[in-house]
Amino acid sequence: MDKLHLDQHISHQFNKELEDIRNKVLTMGGLVEQQVTNGLTALLEADNDLAAKVAERDYEINMLEVEIDEDCTQVLAKRQPAASDLRLVVTVIKVITDLERIGDEAEKLGRFSRDLTQMSEESPSYRKELRHLGELVKSMLQDSLDAFARMDVDAALAIAQRDEDVNREYGNLERLLGTHLVEDPRQVSKLFKITWCARALERIGDHSVNICEYVVYLVKGRDIRHTSFDKIRSEFLNK
Amino acid sequence: MDKLHLDQHISHQFNKELEDIRNKVLTMGGLVEQQVTNGLTALLEADNDLAAKVAERDYEINMLEVEIDEDCTQVLAKRQPAASDLRLVVTVIKVITDLERIGDEAEKLGRFSRDLTQMSEESPSYRKELRHLGELVKSMLQDSLDAFARMDVDAALAIAQRDEDVNREYGNLERLLGTHLVEDPRQVSKLFKITWCARALERIGDHSVNICEYVVYLVKGRDIRHTSFDKIRSEFLNK
Repeated sequence: MDKLHLDQHISHQFNKELEDIRNKVLTMGGLVEQQVTNGLTALLEADNDLAAKVAERDYEINMLEVEIDEDCTQVLAKRQPAASDLRLVVTVIKVITDLERIGDEAEKLGRFSRDLTQMSEESPSYRKELRHLGELVKSMLQDSLDAFARMDVDAALAIAQRDEDVNREYGNLERLLGTHLVEDPRQVSKLFKITWCARALERIGDHSVNICEYVVYLVKGRDIRHTSFDKIRSEFLNK
Repeated sequence: MDKLHLDQHISHQFNKELEDIRNKVLTMGGLVEQQVTNGLTALLEADNDLAAKVAERDYEINMLEVEIDEDCTQVLAKRQPAASDLRLVVTVIKVITDLERIGDEAEKLGRFSRDLTQMSEESPSYRKELRHLGELVKSMLQDSLDAFARMDVDAALAIAQRDEDVNREYGNLERLLGTHLVEDPRQVSKLFKITWCARALERIGDHSVNICEYVVYLVKGRDIRHTSFDKIRSEFLNK
């Protein structure tokens, strides 16, 4: 397994600052993961209280993003990090942007859930159709954050490839909702909302892939965005 | 008008490096703007050749993002910029992420356009419904890039507020498409595609707002993300 070993610095203070930043990112990641889990549960179980809780806590994620961003800028200004330290700071600046946007998508799940509850309840609930996609995406996010915490390139590459499953499931879901719509056009508003939920889940998958790509950049110092995964696999895996 | 004046450095080489980065971002911005214009034209005029051209050129945007990212990391490592220079570099790292994602949305417009052409053509075209939203979003993007080029905070704050118009128009469009769907459920696939196009446009508006927020951060050194625009206006405008 390929891991990043951060340099040890003569300045213990600098070590501590980098470690603090990394810990804050992991805290933010944990919070985002919890928000996605709660947003999805709120949606699947039509739990409005939980949905309200998700909306409330989004604020914490936003504040953490601003705080970590500020910490990174401070470290860049004061410590002038080089090599792997510099890559860590640049990576963190990127990772927290994706985490914040995953938080926004989680909040949307809660909001859409409440909108759905307000719509006529005698009609069939299509919410359950989202369960499989939701589980796929949740595990992708969780594993991406683990790969970041362990700075594990092999895991990151493997996780990123699971985005294909997410896209396939998303496509299946869209077709299924289209079929429901033709059968019962009066459900149009409800079905549109369900497709937005599916879209939010699919985007959480995309952001998880971004996090995996940053892990590779961090450890390997190589930018893999926009490069085919097959090429990267053959270069990096099983070495 | 509030503008950022970059420090002049004893090292002419450093000045040049920062200026080069800034110019590359403007080049990337111009390319992204062109892609959005072409993607929208391809869509509104069902022009498959233009749609194919948009898909081809996305590669250039991706390569520019990787290149500018690398330039920024180099400058951070070699020059250890401080104060406004450091903010410029951090801002660029963020702006290019949004530009790249706008490029992806433009590419989607082209792809959806071709998908729509492949669908039965005897049915009514709903594409024209997207024109108004498309024009709103295009001008927001253009003005955001101008605000970045001129580092103009007042303009950036005013542009960001136009996102409300985009969201309102997006809501109108969704309701309109819903009505079409109820009238003619056989058009479900086509109408879903049109809503994805609307969604892509709406996201371009969101990314333009992000760029505006970075302009304020760059000039004012203050992070306005997640803060209400009213509060910011009262603090910054008309001073």
